[in-house]
Amino acid sequence: MAHFDTEYQRLEASYSDSPPGEENLLMHVPEGAKSHWHHIENLDLFFQRISFYMKNGFTCMLLGEIFELVQLLFVVGFTVFLANCVDYDILFANKFVNHTDSSKVTLPDAFLPVDVCSARIRDNAFVIFVLIISGVFWLHRLVKFLYNVCCYWEIRSFYINALKMTMSELPYATWQEVQARIVEIQKEHQICIHKKELTELDIYHRILRFKNYMVAMVNKSLLPVRFRLPTLGESVFYTRGLKYNFELIFFWGPGSLFENEWSLKPEYKRGGNRLELADRLASRILWIGIANLLLCPVILVWQILYAFFSYTEVIKREPGSLGARCWSLYGRCYLRHFNELDHELMSRLSKGYKAASKYMNCFLSPLLTVVAKNVAFFAGSLLAVLIALTIYDEDVLAVEHVLTSITLLGVCITVCRSFIPDKHMVFCPEQLLRVILAHIHYMPDHWQGVYSRGADKSSGGWGWRHLLLCPDGHQTAWTPCVDVSGEDRGIYLPTGRGWEDRVVSDALCHHQSPVAASSGDHTIHQPAKGASSQRGHRGCFGHTSTLTV
Amino acid sequence: MAHFDTEYQRLEASYSDSPPGEENLLMHVPEGAKSHWHHIENLDLFFQRISFYMKNGFTCMLLGEIFELVQLLFVVGFTVFLANCVDYDILFANKFVNHTDSSKVTLPDAFLPVDVCSARIRDNAFVIFVLIISGVFWLHRLVKFLYNVCCYWEIRSFYINALKMTMSELPYATWQEVQARIVEIQKEHQICIHKKELTELDIYHRILRFKNYMVAMVNKSLLPVRFRLPTLGESVFYTRGLKYNFELIFFWGPGSLFENEWSLKPEYKRGGNRLELADRLASRILWIGIANLLLCPVILVWQILYAFFSYTEVIKREPGSLGARCWSLYGRCYLRHFNELDHELMSRLSKGYKAASKYMNCFLSPLLTVVAKNVAFFAGSLLAVLIALTIYDEDVLAVEHVLTSITLLGVCITVCRSFIPDKHMVFCPEQLLRVILAHIHYMPDHWQGVYSRGADKSSGGWGWRHLLLCPDGHQTAWTPCVDVSGEDRGIYLPTGRGWEDRVVSDALCHHQSPVAASSGDHTIHQPAKGASSQRGHRGCFGHTSTLTV
Amino acid sequence: MAHFDTEYQRLEASYSDSPPGEENLLMHVPEGAKSHWHHIENLDLFFQRISFYMKNGFTCMLLGEIFELVQLLFVVGFTVFLANCVDYDILFANKFVNHTDSSKVTLPDAFLPVDVCSARIRDNAFVIFVLIISGVFWLHRLVKFLYNVCCYWEIRSFYINALKMTMSELPYATWQEVQARIVEIQKEHQICIHKKELTELDIYHRILRFKNYMVAMVNKSLLPVRFRLPTLGESVFYTRGLKYNFELIFFWGPGSLFENEWSLKPEYKRGGNRLELADRLASRILWIGIANLLLCPVILVWQILYAFFSYTEVIKREPGSLGARCWSLYGRCYLRHFNELDHELMSRLSKGYKAASKYMNCFLSPLLTVVAKNVAFFAGSLLAVLIALTIYDEDVLAVEHVLTSITLLGVCITVCRSFIPDKHMVFCPEQLLRVILAHIHYMPDHWQGVYSRGADKSSGGWGWRHLLLCPDGHQTAWTPCVDVSGEDRGIYLPTGRGWEDRVVSDALCHHQSPVAASSGDHTIHQPAKGASSQRGHRGCFGHTSTLTV
Repeated sequence: MAHFDTEYQRLEASYSDSPPGEENLLMHVPEGAKSHWHHIENLDLFFQRISFYMKNGFTCMLLGEIFELVQLLFVVGFTVFLANCVDYDILFANKFVNHTDSSKVTLPDAFLPVDVCSARIRDNAFVIFVLIISGVFWLHRLVKFLYNVCCYWEIRSFYINALKMTMSELPYATWQEVQARIVEIQKEHQICIHKKELTELDIYHRILRFKNYMVAMVNKSLLPVRFRLPTLGESVFYTRGLKYNFELIFFWGPGSLFENEWSLKPEYKRGGNRLELADRLASRILWIGIANLLLCPVILVWQILYAFFSYTEVIKREPGSLGARCWSLYGRCYLRHFNELDHELMSRLSKGYKAASKYMNCFLSPLLTVVAKNVAFFAGSLLAVLIALTIYDEDVLAVEHVLTSITLLGVCITVCRSFIPDKHMVFCPEQLLRVILAHIHYMPDHWQGVYSRGADKSSGGWGWRHLLLCPDGHQTAWTPCVDVSGEDRGIYLPTGRGWEDRVVSDALCHHQSPVAASSGDHTIHQPAKGASSQRGHRGCFGHTSTLTV
Repeated sequence: MAHFDTEYQRLEASYSDSPPGEENLLMHVPEGAKSHWHHIENLDLFFQRISFYMKNGFTCMLLGEIFELVQLLFVVGFTVFLANCVDYDILFANKFVNHTDSSKVTLPDAFLPVDVCSARIRDNAFVIFVLIISGVFWLHRLVKFLYNVCCYWEIRSFYINALKMTMSELPYATWQEVQARIVEIQKEHQICIHKKELTELDIYHRILRFKNYMVAMVNKSLLPVRFRLPTLGESVFYTRGLKYNFELIFFWGPGSLFENEWSLKPEYKRGGNRLELADRLASRILWIGIANLLLCPVILVWQILYAFFSYTEVIKREPGSLGARCWSLYGRCYLRHFNELDHELMSRLSKGYKAASKYMNCFLSPLLTVVAKNVAFFAGSLLAVLIALTIYDEDVLAVEHVLTSITLLGVCITVCRSFIPDKHMVFCPEQLLRVILAHIHYMPDHWQGVYSRGADKSSGGWGWRHLLLCPDGHQTAWTPCVDVSGEDRGIYLPTGRGWEDRVVSDALCHHQSPVAASSGDHTIHQPAKGASSQRGHRGCFGHTSTLTV
Repeated sequence: MAHFDTEYQRLEASYSDSPPGEENLLMHVPEGAKSHWHHIENLDLFFQRISFYMKNGFTCMLLGEIFELVQLLFVVGFTVFLANCVDYDILFANKFVNHTDSSKVTLPDAFLPVDVCSARIRDNAFVIFVLIISGVFWLHRLVKFLYNVCCYWEIRSFYINALKMTMSELPYATWQEVQARIVEIQKEHQICIHKKELTELDIYHRILRFKNYMVAMVNKSLLPVRFRLPTLGESVFYTRGLKYNFELIFFWGPGSLFENEWSLKPEYKRGGNRLELADRLASRILWIGIANLLLCPVILVWQILYAFFSYTEVIKREPGSLGARCWSLYGRCYLRHFNELDHELMSRLSKGYKAASKYMNCFLSPLLTVVAKNVAFFAGSLLAVLIALTIYDEDVLAVEHVLTSITLLGVCITVCRSFIPDKHMVFCPEQLLRVILAHIHYMPDHWQGVYSRGADKSSGGWGWRHLLLCPDGHQTAWTPCVDVSGEDRGIYLPTGRGWEDRVVSDALCHHQSPVAASSGDHTIHQPAKGASSQRGHRGCFGHTSTLTV
């Protein structure tokens, strides 16, 4: 613990945001000059909102949040309705309905009368419990929504009155234009009182304060996101749930390292009581782990329901999309530059996406291919017979489970096909890797001169593969389910001393040394021309972390 | 009216097709030398047919026209059959059939007997009326078809005997080769008696006489195709129906500006009685508008039926294709060079299509995206439950309207998805615009240095968007329906004085001034190398319009 | 017969594999130095297996062969089951089942009891016959499989012990690395005793001995694969079955030209008894033809069953894939360099695939397009009505053959659509041809300066079209069926004297002349840089054929 393996160091010179000699002058601004936008306290959040607002606009933001509230109501309500108010025997034709007018069963026939239905709900304690939990959560979301609307209304008037941009111009403005206007406005409205002039870098630092921390921690491998599976080798576990927990622990949860949303607690800035702080963090992480475990059933049910409602029809219609890949959450963090906004990162990654996707397809396991081909053949044979029978006489469909079999066999075949490489595929991983690298800018040292997974394997078992792309369905649909248990595991694993010590000590030592460290140690840095000059260099994280008010 | 805002001017020098001094010599060609192809009267149509024939060949042309005749019969007959000869109660299982041999209902069971059916048709006055109208129209088409067959047979023998091209060579010949042979043939057969030698430009002028007029009128914004909608801003309305009406009015309808298919009426060449001509045109347009209004129900029914038969299965199978885009009719006119044949224009536009399509996808409205995402989620949830129930037990399908719901929800989701941008899309409108421009050659002045719709909006509200691409389904399936009423509006709107005056005066002033005007005023001309040199410059329209026999 | 129209000639200098002066020294290798891998007798097969093993690995190979055995059992067993043990009257609801518990028919209800089923099988002589034939064939495959497992186990230990490559490294090794190690190993283990040192060329020659012969024979047009159809012009018939028969005749069947797998029979190396040899070959070909004819029904049934099980669900799900193209077997042979391994050839052809596929789409027959468009319209109209009715009320599906009609009309429309060119297609065959040529390297002389099928037609009627790409479905699904009869024809046709004489004499004359001939006479050779230097020049076939032990 005496030795901290980091190169991030405290940047003494720029510890205060103000230029030297200006600290005291700021208090003397005459009262009359203060505009409505003078001295915004939480400038980080303000800039974040400005950036978010720019992309979406007020109506979109409003509509999106309303839809989220409605979605929540809908998922809970619809599930309760399906569980309590539908007579499935009528739907499955096990029970017959007596109609006087027509012999056909209609959907409303299968719905129970309102009184029966509400009685069943009242009698079911678990449903009542779920409804109460959801109700509380929904109310919390409603309050947050109302607060957000107010905030965004303010941002809106800031755009209109301070930045002088009309709402119709906004969708066509670039972030650079908006930023330039903010820099301009500072001179007039003094939105930040710690510095006389804002630079673009200041704005980036404030918007990306926490993201920069996360990028640094991922780069330094401080987060316990890699672990070794018995047979599959080293693998990466970094889901949205885990990320949420990390942010809770470090940034904004009760007892986190930050005293408000923009400045680290003073005790973490001194190196003295390191052991004590690590202990305190360990117990906090334990409590958050327990909370995760307790909430697990509710979250799990919610995630299964949400995944079911979101992905069933996709799986039915184009099961191949399950095999589609996207940049993993870990990859997005690993490949992010310091001071890179979301849309800048995504634009960079999107440019590399096509090549990366092709690259991944170059390395389909031949074993898997053999198995997939043969499973597809056997399933296809059965399906062929069923299809032929159905085409000959559709009465076959009335036989129980024939339609089920056709559907499931179809899904099975399509999944298999996604493991069979295109026979006209051009195999040229090295060129692809070069194209990808031109966009993603970083790669581990040991990738140099190699391109295959062989190299990955020989160099410690964690590959490009896990780093960058993971199946889309996995990422969005299935992981959340694994997530919850995973989170617990993710929480329990590191309660051993070694881990927090490293996290805390690292968080600490960011503020120890006066020289901004270059993180170039384990990555090759290919600068994107123009980008780094504006956004600040990856190495200036030390500077970022000291940008406290 | 005294000032004509055009730069097209009469080209005195080349008013006659003959080189100076040859006019009188032409009458002295000895009789004996006249071949079968000597002095073709309607040379415009002859060249058009040669060009059309080259692309398709005799068999294709014949087959295509026969299929059109059969299609007409089929649509009318099948509709009448569906409306009068099917017992839907049997199909929908509201009425039971007594079979002695089997319990299954077959399709023929649902067909009414011939006598019942013909009685029902006889009793229905509207059906009789439709049948008579269709019969008359079909006979007219049949006569036209027979005439066309004769014409194309003649063209065929022209190819074989005069151009010495066998039918098997034809599909692999290029237009340039055919043209070169025609120029050669002129020396021998004297197919045009007004000039001793034909040039490629002459042939292009004759084939594209009317198209060139239309291009000029669209370029000069003389046609009332742009109008302002209450909320959507300026929009373009230019459909096939409207185009047909324009051509009817200007070129070949009774009382049009042309006395035959290749020369303008003499009164329009003089500037004296301009007011009188405008009045006459106004009344003609009024009458054509009334005719449109009267024929409206028949055309509308036909278009609905045709769209239903053509697009229903496409919508069912791949609803995403509704969102596919194609070059709008207006765009095709606006971007056309003077003297550019259809296949040359389409080859140019096809090269720009991919980039243009990508460009359009860059600007999906974020508001629409939010709505589409959420509608897709709600529809998807319902669909997920229905699919899960169906897979569990296919008896659910027997419940009324379950299959209907599944189908409609599926279509709804697919339509929604077409409004959600691909998350790996690379956003680079400026490069795309540059690629597009390399192929389409023209852009309005105010596009320079801008790329977003913002610029479009600020510069008068009619964008690239409406100009170039419109949804495919809109263009081909739905517009025709709107069309008819639209045509009327299109016709009524301009009956106000201002408009015809401009049209007529413009048509007139083409022949006023002795200098060929360059139309470079409101477009940036990026010459396609090689193309302009052969086809003649966009500016030489004045010359074109004087190419009368 | 006195004049042999070939330029392949015997390469005296390198007739023996040993460097001059070393022939006798080889016998004096001391016994003690012999390793397990010393003097591998069938070095050709050994190298082939090494190459094959490298691509797949032991597990894949094992699994693949096991699956093949199971597939055979499955196809035979499932077909017999379907034919004898299913009561289709129950499935088609023509017969009712009495259930005490539920009114629903389940799939097991339709299966006959085991005793009824086995009795039906016992009574059916044809089924018994098929079962016996399949049983014998399966046992033969099983023995072959066991033998293969032993061989590959040996290869595995060769990789591990001699080449020092672990199984986990193998998937990431390149063929060049493996080859380099083999060359290295030769010095130590003396796997080949005829030469002191192996070169890469030696290895290639041995692996590709027979393939090189086939390439040469196809290049020289010695195989009767082109024939003239009454209306369709010259066409190429070269299927997997025909190829199998050719290989049987020339290389490894009883009485073939080779005495073992690596050396030609001595009598074929002398030119004296050419007529006698040709006679002998003629009678052999006749006998193989008769054997083909006798086995025809069994092979045909097998191929129909296999095609049905493999392609039915593909045709149902994406009928458009029937129109997908792949490189024809003839094209793969025609375009192959001498000494080019399968994966090298496929990588080259894959690079040209996209362009070649586009090129082929440029030449859709306009006649076919017109017909396809109209057939699609008529089928689409009927389908539209059926879909609309189904959406309105799903009881329509219960009407007999409505679902059948919907399915078949849907397939029909999709097939039609594959003949309608994309309207945004860019037509630039010449550029495409240039791209293709950069990868495929060869083209017939008469292609120079031309690009269209017209040129093909004028120059003898066999085109690029037939040469390179054929519909995938045709290649893999339907040809096999045509195949069997075709093989017979392919065999009977050439029993006339002229043909064998040419084959035999050509096989002979490969060994007549001491100079390695360049095959450059009828192809344009575009050398792939780097490739030819390593793999040996196309012209060195004479050398190849003399590489006998």
